[in-house]
Formats: sequence, structure tokens, C-alpha cells
Amino acid sequence: MKRLDETAAGVFIICVTPFKATGELDLTSAENMVEFYLARGATGLTLLGMMGEAPKLTVGESVAFVECVLARVAGRVPVVVGLPNAGLASMAELSTAVMAAGAAGVMVAPPSHLRSDAQIRGYFTQVAMAIGKDTPFVLQDFPLVTTVTISPQTLMQIIADNPNCVMLKHEDWPGLNKLSELRNAQASGAMRPISILVGNGGMFLPDELARGANGAMTGFAYPEMMAEVLAAWQAGAAERARDLFDAYLPLVRYEQQPGLGLAVRKHILALRGAIACATLRLPAPVLSAVDIADIEYLIERQARRLQALG
Amino acid sequence: MKRLDETAAGVFIICVTPFKATGELDLTSAENMVEFYLARGATGLTLLGMMGEAPKLTVGESVAFVECVLARVAGRVPVVVGLPNAGLASMAELSTAVMAAGAAGVMVAPPSHLRSDAQIRGYFTQVAMAIGKDTPFVLQDFPLVTTVTISPQTLMQIIADNPNCVMLKHEDWPGLNKLSELRNAQASGAMRPISILVGNGGMFLPDELARGANGAMTGFAYPEMMAEVLAAWQAGAAERARDLFDAYLPLVRYEQQPGLGLAVRKHILALRGAIACATLRLPAPVLSAVDIADIEYLIERQARRLQALG
Amino acid sequence: MKRLDETAAGVFIICVTPFKATGELDLTSAENMVEFYLARGATGLTLLGMMGEAPKLTVGESVAFVECVLARVAGRVPVVVGLPNAGLASMAELSTAVMAAGAAGVMVAPPSHLRSDAQIRGYFTQVAMAIGKDTPFVLQDFPLVTTVTISPQTLMQIIADNPNCVMLKHEDWPGLNKLSELRNAQASGAMRPISILVGNGGMFLPDELARGANGAMTGFAYPEMMAEVLAAWQAGAAERARDLFDAYLPLVRYEQQPGLGLAVRKHILALRGAIACATLRLPAPVLSAVDIADIEYLIERQARRLQALG
Amino acid sequence: MKRLDETAAGVFIICVTPFKATGELDLTSAENMVEFYLARGATGLTLLGMMGEAPKLTVGESVAFVECVLARVAGRVPVVVGLPNAGLASMAELSTAVMAAGAAGVMVAPPSHLRSDAQIRGYFTQVAMAIGKDTPFVLQDFPLVTTVTISPQTLMQIIADNPNCVMLKHEDWPGLNKLSELRNAQASGAMRPISILVGNGGMFLPDELARGANGAMTGFAYPEMMAEVLAAWQAGAAERARDLFDAYLPLVRYEQQPGLGLAVRKHILALRGAIACATLRLPAPVLSAVDIADIEYLIERQARRLQALG
Repeated sequence: MKRLDETAAGVFIICVTPFKATGELDLTSAENMVEFYLARGATGLTLLGMMGEAPKLTVGESVAFVECVLARVAGRVPVVVGLPNAGLASMAELSTAVMAAGAAGVMVAPPSHLRSDAQIRGYFTQVAMAIGKDTPFVLQDFPLVTTVTISPQTLMQIIADNPNCVMLKHEDWPGLNKLSELRNAQASGAMRPISILVGNGGMFLPDELARGANGAMTGFAYPEMMAEVLAAWQAGAAERARDLFDAYLPLVRYEQQPGLGLAVRKHILALRGAIACATLRLPAPVLSAVDIADIEYLIERQARRLQALG
Repeated sequence: MKRLDETAAGVFIICVTPFKATGELDLTSAENMVEFYLARGATGLTLLGMMGEAPKLTVGESVAFVECVLARVAGRVPVVVGLPNAGLASMAELSTAVMAAGAAGVMVAPPSHLRSDAQIRGYFTQVAMAIGKDTPFVLQDFPLVTTVTISPQTLMQIIADNPNCVMLKHEDWPGLNKLSELRNAQASGAMRPISILVGNGGMFLPDELARGANGAMTGFAYPEMMAEVLAAWQAGAAERARDLFDAYLPLVRYEQQPGLGLAVRKHILALRGAIACATLRLPAPVLSAVDIADIEYLIERQARRLQALG
Repeated sequence: MKRLDETAAGVFIICVTPFKATGELDLTSAENMVEFYLARGATGLTLLGMMGEAPKLTVGESVAFVECVLARVAGRVPVVVGLPNAGLASMAELSTAVMAAGAAGVMVAPPSHLRSDAQIRGYFTQVAMAIGKDTPFVLQDFPLVTTVTISPQTLMQIIADNPNCVMLKHEDWPGLNKLSELRNAQASGAMRPISILVGNGGMFLPDELARGANGAMTGFAYPEMMAEVLAAWQAGAAERARDLFDAYLPLVRYEQQPGLGLAVRKHILALRGAIACATLRLPAPVLSAVDIADIEYLIERQARRLQALG
Repeated sequence: MKRLDETAAGVFIICVTPFKATGELDLTSAENMVEFYLARGATGLTLLGMMGEAPKLTVGESVAFVECVLARVAGRVPVVVGLPNAGLASMAELSTAVMAAGAAGVMVAPPSHLRSDAQIRGYFTQVAMAIGKDTPFVLQDFPLVTTVTISPQTLMQIIADNPNCVMLKHEDWPGLNKLSELRNAQASGAMRPISILVGNGGMFLPDELARGANGAMTGFAYPEMMAEVLAAWQAGAAERARDLFDAYLPLVRYEQQPGLGLAVRKHILALRGAIACATLRLPAPVLSAVDIADIEYLIERQARRLQALG
């Protein structure tokens, strides 16, 4: 399998982890989900992300899920696998296993106890060595969840320190100026090129494309939104991209609620037939009847608005 | 002045604190801002909120600003004043001063060291006693900033404990089901009626109105959005309310970026002539040229879309 | 193996996890360490605790280490195994495995995102069900590390909810009055009896024994201190217990430094021959030459003072 | 009044703020307290520190308290005044007032939202400018309370950036190697000399003196402990210094409990006649009868041990 590199672009979907109503891992749905995502424009997949309920899987289940998806994808698109903050030994073990099975790279977020620049920089150096220089990795910069603030200067140092850091999953909030700063550093030669894909459910996708993002790595239940916005953008149709984005924005916003958002996403994916069942493993929030009514109403309005757009 | 009570509703604008380019308090702009807000549908004003740069004022400046606004409002709408988390003595002192000057009530958020339900409940009992039973207060529930999680049960206990707790500024995120739970408790008689106004820049305004919110208490730079959405909602025109909301949503989202959002808001308010100068007191984030271009583009798209709506 | 119950008392040592200089798990040292601890008065052992570098082991290593220790202990004392905050499925899987291998119970600390009483209570109910009602568990109450504050009332509810909660590892700080409150509740019949063992390296051991603790569960590198203090206490020789404690206190304090403390502990255990090598797995702090000189000086002073005590 | 500079050394006592049983500020006790501290070896005083209940005073009370103490001290020792994290305007206002009244310098701790090195460094630059280059300041490095981690490198940058940063109140935990690193930097010429006084109630005082601390700035209720340990140390009697320290350590440890510790300290100061009343302003923890019995027993043991030492 081709390894991930700094030319990666497009829409990497953060996959949910499908479960049966009993809570059992649902590998049939996993295969179906792969086809659903690919048919709607995904150019890559990311497994075991923070939003993918990875911490709720046993190690055996994690490996089974990754192998199932890799087999189904069969090399059509690159697959990135999130590593848990579980000590370097466990991270290296899982990394080696998934790379051997055909993953294109791994993803790492900083553990929440890191504070100073030196601590953060040191951590990524240790991780990069532990997974090995031939394993490309994505740095996930998501302070709302990790509580770790990484300055642009520290990001640049990490990228300089570790040639296998090839992509930034950019989801600082606010993060627009951080993105601009990195792109300016790259333009001036102060930083080697890396791929920057955006997260946060896509809440700032057009604004981030305007600042040089290469696409999105997030899990919004309508992957076609991201694919179409990106295509319009690349075709020079910025207004069209914004119109599409705005049509989806009320639902993007609804799905972006912390914690509850994954239940919203799975509910929609089940409605759309991507997975058989919207079940989350416990502990998990449960949608109320009013939430479900909200979602269905927002979907219906979204459909009308997209139709009006043509 | 009429004191705030549980019948309060409508749009209470969280006012910015205007400064001159030198950083000096700008009371001329404060007066102008009052007229700007009232002309666009504000039914109440809130001063010295977290987003209003209150901690950057000296005590003397805080009092001068409040007195200036109260004098200009001259009883046309109720004015709520935020109290700092600065010890009960300072809170009582400021509360007494502003109530004597004609404020309708005060607002209190929990300090960030509170954790258990008993600690939170105890804190509000102490505050309620310190400010006095004749001073109505708004409880601001904003965990993203305070880091304090208040369960619906604890909110109900605080409301039962303290008759002068007459309003909830609801900005938990996700918070829709908390809002429903409180309204259900009220409907079943388990909780006395209180006013619930929503925050978070209005990001969930129509969804929250649908669940029984009485209006908004937030500072989005287009108060008329909230007033018009609320009016449409109350007139039974839910689709119209949603259409209006959606037209403003891209900018609501842009202004809702933590930290940077206040700079966005002040920039727009200065553009709109509400205040003379967009200056924030240091320490504060500064908008980049690209941010300003973003804002102006979003304003222009918003105007086109509102025109299309009619 | 006899299961842990509320009569558990004495000194449960939080075992370190021994590594070779290469970072490889050192099972020979693990066996040696068991004998070291038992010979110095341990009446129980706890494996995979927060301070035991558990997160740095792979799942396979964790199981191998637990099995090695259980085989060596061969039923002489009860062994408790710490579960990671890794989702209910992984916790149940590890719990089942170690109980089958002969552990006496498991230990659970709350994950750091829990805030309200209801969230904390709900979490332990889910854990108690996931591990099964026949698996006794120790609740570790350690806010300095977990950031979760559990009120005495919530602790009592968790104990009432879950009959398999048989022990509290008490290391809130300050926590003396919480301990008294629980013992008073037990005396008045408001709470069923449970075992309370104290942590924090033993920093408050005599004060906690005076308030009704049943012993200690912590990992100070001189287990004999805890065993002797407890024996003196139980023999009614409170002054003698204090004198012994005070002789060790300068080193207890030095070993209780967050993060660095485990390196101090392993250094002493290696000096004392309990383990072959003081190595910590990366990422880990490293003792400076001055730290090592400090430790050796404190050990020497401690020996002199103990000799003077007789 | 002589301004604080990098030659400051000895024992700067963090003063409590005395209240009457009614909660009213007790300025008579404040004067008495000054004499108590000076008679027991204080070479400086620090007012309005985190432990001094500063946030519970109104601005007017803060100024009255500072002026009262300054008048009583009458230039006999330097007085440092802690500034609240209350915005630059308020900090500058209080700083100007207390320096005009005769303070020797001010003290600043980083607000808890700072994370990256650049944010921390930027903050102190802004503060240093706001208070003015002629106002010396003490940087309080106390991560347990502030949640802000400052690396040694960042400390050195702050010191280089701001000539008016003349002292470090060192209370990181663990912090011994940070202290060594700063002293090594100074010895090598990489950092200009500054005064380093230690905090944390003195829990590591002899170890810190051994690494080059210039004394202590903390509030342990027995100032003579710090004065005598320091005197013995400076006289080359390290063993004597340790013996003295160890005699006080059980009480140092008891007083060092977060939150509760200040109630312990005030209780002892009232017992010793330094202040009339041990009252803390609400919200505050209250000592239980068992706590008070603990304290009295520890004081009695301490007296016996000191007597034995001679």
C-alpha cells in the first residue's frame, strides 16, 4: 500500500465504528459503510479516531475492525488509523500491526497532561521514534478535546524534527490564523510542505480552503457536502461552494455538539443506510425523541434547500 | 426601576464595552450603542458579561460604564449587570451599587474551582445571601468557559433554594436536552417558573425556542436577527424563523469563535456605526487582514441572502 | 482465591512494574519484588496502579505481569489489579482475565471528564455491571490526578448502589474530614461497612489511622514503615507510631513529588535489591545527579534516626 | 522605600489577612501580626497573596490593609503586594497605588488560561509594561494552583525580556531540578542573577537551599522555623538545619493541605496570639473538632521534639 505523504488531499472521512443493537461490533455494517463513504466522494478513510469510539473497543476488536475495513477498501483509497494515548509500547504495537495490514499511516493527538512547548515537542519526537521513521503520521491538533495548545512555532518544530509527520489534522478553534501562519511559513520556505486537512465537522470548511487547506478529515454524515464544496472550490466556483456549504450548515452545527454529536451522526448514517444500527457503546449519550425530531426536520429542510440550489 | 422577574423574555443584548483607540473607556460610544441596540429590537441589556471585557475594567470604570448606560436607557428596558467571581464582599459591593443606580438584576456564573453538586449549590446559596434577597439574579450556565458542569437536578435545587434566582442564561453545549428537562420539570410542577434566555451567540436559537426558551441573552452583532427570529416564532411562522436564522448562521458561526469572536463582534459593530472604534483592551487577539476580508465577505453574502428572502 | 471484601486491612503495596535497562518487562525482578514486599509486611499487593506504569504496557505485557505475580504469590496474600479507563469492554475483558487467573479484586478510578454527581454515580454503576457482580472492586478517589471530585454523599451512593464496591482507596487531599464523614456514616448505620485504605504515599498515615482507616494502599519504598506504624497503632502505642512515621517522613515527602516520585521510588527499590534496575519506560522523568545525592543523604539520615529510636 | 531587587533574600512571610469574627477586616490584628512576624525573623512581608484571601477583599479593603501594614512596618523590611489576575488596567491601578504607598514591589502569577510558551511570555511582557519599568515584580510559579506550566527556558526568556522581573517565587512541584537549572544558567552567564525564594509552605526548604535558593516566601505559621533553618544553613550547619526542619515537618505537611491549609494556619496564628481571631471569610472551609485536636497534638509533639533538639 502506498504510504501517506504530504501530497494527501481531498476528503478523508473519520469513520464511525458500527455496532449491533446488542453492542457487538458489526463488521457487515463496516463493509457497507466503506462503500457508502467511497460512493459519496471519500478519497481516504480514518479509523479509530476520537469520535470513532476507539476507546470502547478491546485491542482485539480494534484490530479486527481495521483489518475488515482494509480488506474491503482493497487499496482503493489510503486508510489512516488513530493511535490511542496509551504509552509508547502499545502505540508502537498497534502501529506496526496496522501498517503491516496495509494502512497508509497513523494519527496521533497529544495526551492532555502536556503543557509547555518543550513537553509537546519531546512527546512527538518519542512517538515518531517509537512508530518508526517509515510510518507516516498525522498530527491531530484538537485543543477543545485534548486541552493541549500547540503554537504555530511548536508545530513547525515538530514538523522539522520528524520527517514522518506528513499531515496536520487541523481542528484548533479558533484556528484560521494558525492555518494561515503555517501556509505562509511554507510559502516562505520556513517549513517544508505538509498536507493540512480540516476537522471540527467541517464547520469552517470554505474559510479554511480559502486559507490553503488541502481538504477535510472529519466525519460529517454527508461526505458529499465536503466533496462537492471542495470540487466547486477547486473549479474556482467559490460562491457555489459557499452556497452548498450554507445549505448543510444547520445540520453541520447540530452534529458538532460535543459528545451528543456522535449519536446524531450515527442516527443519520443509519437513516441513510450506511450502517444497520445507530447504537453507541456505553457509556454514551442517548438522543431524546425531540432530538430525533430536530434531526429529521433539519434533514428535510436541507433537502429542500439543496433542491432549490440545483 | 422594575426588578427582573421570571416573566422576562425577548432579546437581552450582551453589550460590548466600547474603548477609544487609546484604550480609554468610550462613554459616548456607550450611549450610541444603547440606541443602536434598542432600535434593533433589544428588550433588555446586559453589561459586564464575560464577553464584555469586564475583567479589563477597573472597579471605577465598571461603575462609570454602568451608570452611563443606565442613565441613557432611562428605564426603557431592564438592565442586568454581570458580577465578577471576585469574592462575596466585592460581589455584594458591586451588586448594591448597581441596583441602587437602577439595574434590574445581576448575573452570576460559577467560579471554575467548583466541582461537586454540593459545592455548586452551596456557592449559589452564599451568593444569593450576599447580594440580598431583594436583588434578582441570573444564573449563567456556560461550562465551555467556566469548566463547571451543573446537572439539571442541581439547577432545580438552586432555583428552589433561592427565590431571587429568576433567570437562567442557558449556554451549556450541548444543552438542548437540559433545556427540555427544565421545561418539563416546570410543566409538571416540580420547578417554579423561571425565565430561560439562550446564549452561545444564538447558535441554536430556533431549536431552543422550540424547546421553550423565552428568548436570547447574547451579543451577536445583528440584534435584529434574534428579534426577528423570535417575532416570527411567536407569530407561528417557524419556517420563516428558520429561514431568517439560516441567513445569518454563517456569520453567527464566525463570531462564535472563542476569544477571537469578540474582536469579530466589535469589528462589525464599528462597521455598523454602533461604536466608534473596534479596539479591544490588551491582552486581546487582533484580527488579521484575512479575518477582516472574511467578515466583509460574509456580511455581503448575508445581505444578498436576506434580500432574496424578502 | 478468596475474593476481596470489606474486611480487608493492613498494607496493600502498590507494586512498581520492573523493567530491564533495555525497557523490556523484567519478570524475574517481579518475582523478587513480591518476596521483598511480603518479607516487609505487605498483607496484599496491587498491580497496574496509576503509579505502576500500567499505561506503558501493552495488553499482552499487562496480562503476563499479572500472571507472573499471581503465580509467585500463590495465594499467600490477596492481589488487586488496576483497570485502565479504557472503555467498558476493555475493562471487562481485563477484569475477567485477571479474576480467572486468581486476582482478589480490581481497582477503578473515575475518568477525568466526569463532573456532576450524577455522571460519577452513573459511571460506577456501568463499571460495576460490566465487570460483574461477583467481581469486587476498589474505588480509587484521587482527585489530584483524576481531576474528579467525589463528595462524601456521592461516595455513599456509589457504595449503596454497588454491593461489589468493597474498598475505598482514599487519597483525596485534603481528605481527612471525608474519611471521618464516611466512618461516622458507617457508625450511624447510614452506610454499610467498607474497607478504607489510604494512599498519597502514606503522607497522612497516622492521622488517617486515627480517623478509622484500615491501613494503607500505597507504594512507599519502605513497606515496613507502614506495617510498623500500623502495628504500633493497633497495639495502642500511638506515640511510637508517630515517632516511626516522623523518621520516615522526609523521604515520604521526597517520594511524593508528582511524576518524579516514581523514579525516586524505583531508585530506592533498586538500591534495596527489590528490583534489578530502576529503569522507567519512556516517556518518563529522569533523576539528576543531585536528586540521587538527595535520596542517598535522606536514606542515611533516616537510618540514623531509626537507630536512635530503637 | 528601597525597591526590591535581585539581592533580596531571607524569609518573606506571606501574611494572612486578619478578620474579626463578624468577617470585618481587622486592622488592629494586622498591626499585631506585623510585629509577630518581624519578631520571629521575617526579613520581608508579602500581602494579598493567593493564600491571603485577597480575592475576598473589596478594592477599598485591599488598599486599606496594605496601607495599614506599610505604616506599621515603617520601612523596617520590604513589603511585596500580590496583584490579582484582573486585567491590566486593574493591575496597573493597584500597582501604582501600593508603590506610591511604599511597597517594595509587586507579585504576579499567570492566569490559568495561558498554555503555550509564547502566550506565557507575552503575558508577562504586557504586565511588565502595564506596571511600569520602575516597579519591580516577583513572578510566582505555582502550577498546582494556576494550572500553568512554565518551562525553565520560558522563565529565562521572561527574565531576559523584563528587567523589572527581579525575583522568582518558586513553587513548582516537583521543582527541585527547575531550581538547579536556573542556578546553573545563572552560573554560566546564560541568565542574569535573580532572587529565588521558595514556597509550598516550606515543604522542601533544606533541599532547595542546597540547590541555591536565597530563602523562603511562604506563610508557615512558625516563621522562626524558616529563619532558623536558613541561619543554620548559612552557618554551614546543614545537619542542624535538617534536624530543625524535620521537627517542624509534620506540621508543615498538615498546613500544606490545599484549601484547608489556610484555616490551619490561621488557627495556629490565633493560638500563638498573632491575630485575634482565626476567622476566614466565606466561602471557606471550616476546621472540624478532629482537625483542631490534630493540630494541637502536632504542636505539642513539635514542642517536645524541639526541646529534645536543644
